[in-house]
Amino acid sequence: MERIDDLQLGGLKIIQDDALFCFGVDAVLLSHFAKDTPAKTAVDLCSGNGIVAILLAGKTDTEKLMCVEVQPKAAELARRSVALNSLEDRISVIEDNLNNCSRYFAKASVDVVTCNPPYIADHGGLKNKTDEKNIARHEILCTLEDVIRESADILKSGGKLFMVHKPERLVDIFCTMRKYRIEPKRVQFVHPQPHKKANIVLVEGVRSGGAELKMMPPLYVYDENHNYSKEINEIYGREHSDV
Amino acid sequence: MERIDDLQLGGLKIIQDDALFCFGVDAVLLSHFAKDTPAKTAVDLCSGNGIVAILLAGKTDTEKLMCVEVQPKAAELARRSVALNSLEDRISVIEDNLNNCSRYFAKASVDVVTCNPPYIADHGGLKNKTDEKNIARHEILCTLEDVIRESADILKSGGKLFMVHKPERLVDIFCTMRKYRIEPKRVQFVHPQPHKKANIVLVEGVRSGGAELKMMPPLYVYDENHNYSKEINEIYGREHSDV
Repeated sequence: MERIDDLQLGGLKIIQDDALFCFGVDAVLLSHFAKDTPAKTAVDLCSGNGIVAILLAGKTDTEKLMCVEVQPKAAELARRSVALNSLEDRISVIEDNLNNCSRYFAKASVDVVTCNPPYIADHGGLKNKTDEKNIARHEILCTLEDVIRESADILKSGGKLFMVHKPERLVDIFCTMRKYRIEPKRVQFVHPQPHKKANIVLVEGVRSGGAELKMMPPLYVYDENHNYSKEINEIYGREHSDV
Repeated sequence: MERIDDLQLGGLKIIQDDALFCFGVDAVLLSHFAKDTPAKTAVDLCSGNGIVAILLAGKTDTEKLMCVEVQPKAAELARRSVALNSLEDRISVIEDNLNNCSRYFAKASVDVVTCNPPYIADHGGLKNKTDEKNIARHEILCTLEDVIRESADILKSGGKLFMVHKPERLVDIFCTMRKYRIEPKRVQFVHPQPHKKANIVLVEGVRSGGAELKMMPPLYVYDENHNYSKEINEIYGREHSDV
């Protein structure tokens, strides 16, 4: 079923469909993690219903935000959310596999790439490879290496790739980034609570950057009392922890 | 000045010298991180005054613990601590550069390697390259790559490398481990306090292991009230947080 959610960000809204992949805390954290990097042009890969680009439109002055989404229904939702927010002059939606990025973007032309990719490596065990939620979650139509290779191709030297992923994939992320000359520069782990192991990681890589990793303080989604943490409320633009 | 410290572990003691590198929480955490892996033979690289091997002698049933230390004075302290603890039948000290490991150990012969290496990459800016504390802290006589390459050479297939390091080197650690077919399998970040960024990382790699990284819950050295955390007191074998 379709619904329209208010993003609590200058009146921005998003159209979601329960039958497809709905955005989670991951997308919100990714846009927050990327927002302080000035960019004229940004590309959001695996953009789904467009949530990351729409949040970045609200949080940054980026002039051109280009979404790449392979699934027709998600791309259609993204286009309709862009129109609903009257953001057609800033956000465009490309419906294609991200492995075809070179058809749309010149080499070394983009300031920022963001990506909330499918998290789960496809080891061949998955039954239904055409299910839309499976495609959003598993590396069926694109792999981590595809994302990083295409990002490296379109990013300017010094341009940044911001990615949200599962910590279990961190070795793959670091090694593949280095392979394609995107140096991991900043990492933040997100924990459900203090004392719980991290279940989300945010990584910033710099195209052609030198080796120098900076660790960020951990981010806890809930505090010890099971309320949203202060940081999460700030990221969501909420004032109180009882929301 | 020399002193003898009680390790609070079955009467074990360690001889330290303020003029050399004295062990810190890193060595204690490393031995704790490695202790649950059964091993007949273990090699401790960059062993300094022997602290990690002596702690492992107290915490495990490992029959042979072999220390490799390049600095004569540190190796001498290690030998004397081994004798002080009557551990000559279990711990031996090799005074040589770890790049000569192949002189002492057969290929693929060792169950476990532990290492608390110099943390700081040598970018050529260091003035005094013969100072003993500098050698212990900077990659002057051995690099991260040396440690991982030599470990890969002497570890059995399925054998484990346990390393403590700075989180800022994590990209180097992961990528170099993979290069030498030691797969990072388990990672634990150590934070001075909750909400502070991690300043120590513990990494377990498995020789010829498949890709499957497991994140551990974070370890906090102090709690919110500036007391030693419960976990740290347990690791140090203390019962109360006011020690």
